[in-house]
Amino acid sequence: MISNKMIELVQNSSVIRAMFEEGKRLASIYGSENVFDFSLGNPSVEPPEAVKNAVIETVTGESANLVHGYMNNSGYEDVRSTIADSINKKFNTSFTEENIIMTVGAAGGLNVILKTLLNPGDEVITFAPFFGEYRNYVDNYDGELVVVSPNTATFQPNLSEFEKKITDKTKAVIVNTPNNPTGVVYSEETIIALADILNRKQAELKTSIYLISDEPYRELVYGGITVPYLTKYYRNTIVGYSYSKSLSLPGERIGYLVIPGEADAFKDVAAAANVANRILGFVNAPSLIQRVVAKCLDAEVDISVYNRNRELLYNSLIEYGYTCVKPEGAFYLFVKALEEDDKAFSAAAKKYNILIVPGSSFGCPGYFRIAYCVDYKTIEGSLGRFKKLALEYLGK
Amino acid sequence: MISNKMIELVQNSSVIRAMFEEGKRLASIYGSENVFDFSLGNPSVEPPEAVKNAVIETVTGESANLVHGYMNNSGYEDVRSTIADSINKKFNTSFTEENIIMTVGAAGGLNVILKTLLNPGDEVITFAPFFGEYRNYVDNYDGELVVVSPNTATFQPNLSEFEKKITDKTKAVIVNTPNNPTGVVYSEETIIALADILNRKQAELKTSIYLISDEPYRELVYGGITVPYLTKYYRNTIVGYSYSKSLSLPGERIGYLVIPGEADAFKDVAAAANVANRILGFVNAPSLIQRVVAKCLDAEVDISVYNRNRELLYNSLIEYGYTCVKPEGAFYLFVKALEEDDKAFSAAAKKYNILIVPGSSFGCPGYFRIAYCVDYKTIEGSLGRFKKLALEYLGK
Repeated sequence: MISNKMIELVQNSSVIRAMFEEGKRLASIYGSENVFDFSLGNPSVEPPEAVKNAVIETVTGESANLVHGYMNNSGYEDVRSTIADSINKKFNTSFTEENIIMTVGAAGGLNVILKTLLNPGDEVITFAPFFGEYRNYVDNYDGELVVVSPNTATFQPNLSEFEKKITDKTKAVIVNTPNNPTGVVYSEETIIALADILNRKQAELKTSIYLISDEPYRELVYGGITVPYLTKYYRNTIVGYSYSKSLSLPGERIGYLVIPGEADAFKDVAAAANVANRILGFVNAPSLIQRVVAKCLDAEVDISVYNRNRELLYNSLIEYGYTCVKPEGAFYLFVKALEEDDKAFSAAAKKYNILIVPGSSFGCPGYFRIAYCVDYKTIEGSLGRFKKLALEYLGK
Repeated sequence: MISNKMIELVQNSSVIRAMFEEGKRLASIYGSENVFDFSLGNPSVEPPEAVKNAVIETVTGESANLVHGYMNNSGYEDVRSTIADSINKKFNTSFTEENIIMTVGAAGGLNVILKTLLNPGDEVITFAPFFGEYRNYVDNYDGELVVVSPNTATFQPNLSEFEKKITDKTKAVIVNTPNNPTGVVYSEETIIALADILNRKQAELKTSIYLISDEPYRELVYGGITVPYLTKYYRNTIVGYSYSKSLSLPGERIGYLVIPGEADAFKDVAAAANVANRILGFVNAPSLIQRVVAKCLDAEVDISVYNRNRELLYNSLIEYGYTCVKPEGAFYLFVKALEEDDKAFSAAAKKYNILIVPGSSFGCPGYFRIAYCVDYKTIEGSLGRFKKLALEYLGK
């Protein structure tokens, strides 16, 4: 009775979410303190106090019809203007509210921009490993996802293969830095080289290729590293941002798109994105939380908590014999599985009540992802089990 | 640069929304007290105080990670269970949380269920006049919207034409009662006859035809009239509900789908709707407001305000010589235009600073829609102008 596409999608339904449900099942058997669920990127750090204060201030201090009513499908003008100013201050850009479209999270934003851009058969390139939902988002608009194979030495994108895969059907490129699942931040050198390739190919093919920068992890970086702001490196960049991680609000579905004025066909793209937001059924980003985030633009979650997790887990895994590029951002480790079959390895980990996600879910078999956005004691409790798991494969 | 579909959609972009922007422009010239904007269904009645209290109670009394975090893509189990109980109490049904999927408003819910059900080329039937977005929602999944022509005598659906339009490609039927744009409530007699046709056609064609009941106006009815709960009349009914009007929260994007256990392929449909919610980029309904509405299920907006508007406007228009079926629900009047060309008539009204929406936006030319969810004084101020407009056409 359901559509053919959905039959397939339900069958292959996100391994990550299935793991989440499995974690709850194991917890009900063994007790949650004996299950080590590293499967889902659900922030463990509380939202900053500023969020609660802004919620209360908004519902007590502003008109209820304003706070909960319809507004322009692109979002409240004052919220968009405040966000534009904040981006300008941080990155020395010059956006206005015309460049900002409030969206139902970054997932909503990506769908809006793909609906805006794609004709059936258009190609969208991304770099493995990548967030598996990109495949569904592109397929929603009958586009073709073209995957550049992983560079497992550094997990920086493989740019020579990228250049070869650009064709006259390439409409967009999706990058995600800091990256899910590797935690790697694409270097400025990488970004410059990527922009250079795109500029050359655009000129050669006489097309516009939009670089979609999916940025839910922008603020989650460690050791003072800088994440380049991509609109400054390439004219046709569109940013998809989310407050899910920066303010620990993943359930609220709040984020925005930045469409720079210098992007090709800016007016058409912005107008179409406004309409796409409406007709896809989002209508607008949730209203109260739009007003709340505009009051919390300088608030931050305490990322030292994630950093402490990262250090303990990374150092311990290396000690036990695992191999992993040390990540500079996000809250994931992407570790080489101790056997070729990452699904078999993840199943082996489950025998120790450790839940991890096979790399093949991210287009990168032979690896697994650990989401370390969990309590420190979960990390501590898991270490002996990760050690035993390593011993099982590597011997003592 | 943008997709071919979007080029067309931007050009034809919602007349209603364009009117809304036009209203703001006129207000900036003439002053808002001299512009009579009846174009948008943006509730003028404030949300009940219970909403504010529930927001504050939730952010101060519950764990912030729970309130703002990820949950099952179908929504919080406790919220869904509370809503199921409330529906059961009101309508003597027997739903559980398994039957409820929290959605980003009814617009999100309709998109989720259409993504779930439609293969390209499948047909979805609706009855003119209808909410114009249905055309876009069905097109999002490459379905074909089949429109049954209006029965302008009563604006009850034209069932004999409906029966003829059902084919083996008919996957779903969308009804909207109380109706936008007419305000008419489909009678129980209508619903029984509609269900009878659907049952006969299902048996004859050996297909499942889902009846999608779009119910944002369920609670907005006047004179104590009852709106039949459609799952009780037809097994394959799926309800799309929204709190936009019942709690005056249209900006919050919060609603739900009801998928009854007795519906054909219930398990597949519910599982696919859960996945569709995720992959369309909604991910889940906004979290805080999910928890808030579950605490406000017995709260109501003051619909006597809308009723007062309805009475004054309806009685005055009839007195001036307009023709209109007196609506029993929603907050719209659907009035016969005083010339055949409803767009020309709406343009004529604009000369009096009256903004109305041509019936052709709802698949019913020759009429216009008045959204009377405005201040009483806006209604009062508009009467002289509606009278002059009538005189212009009808003479003294």
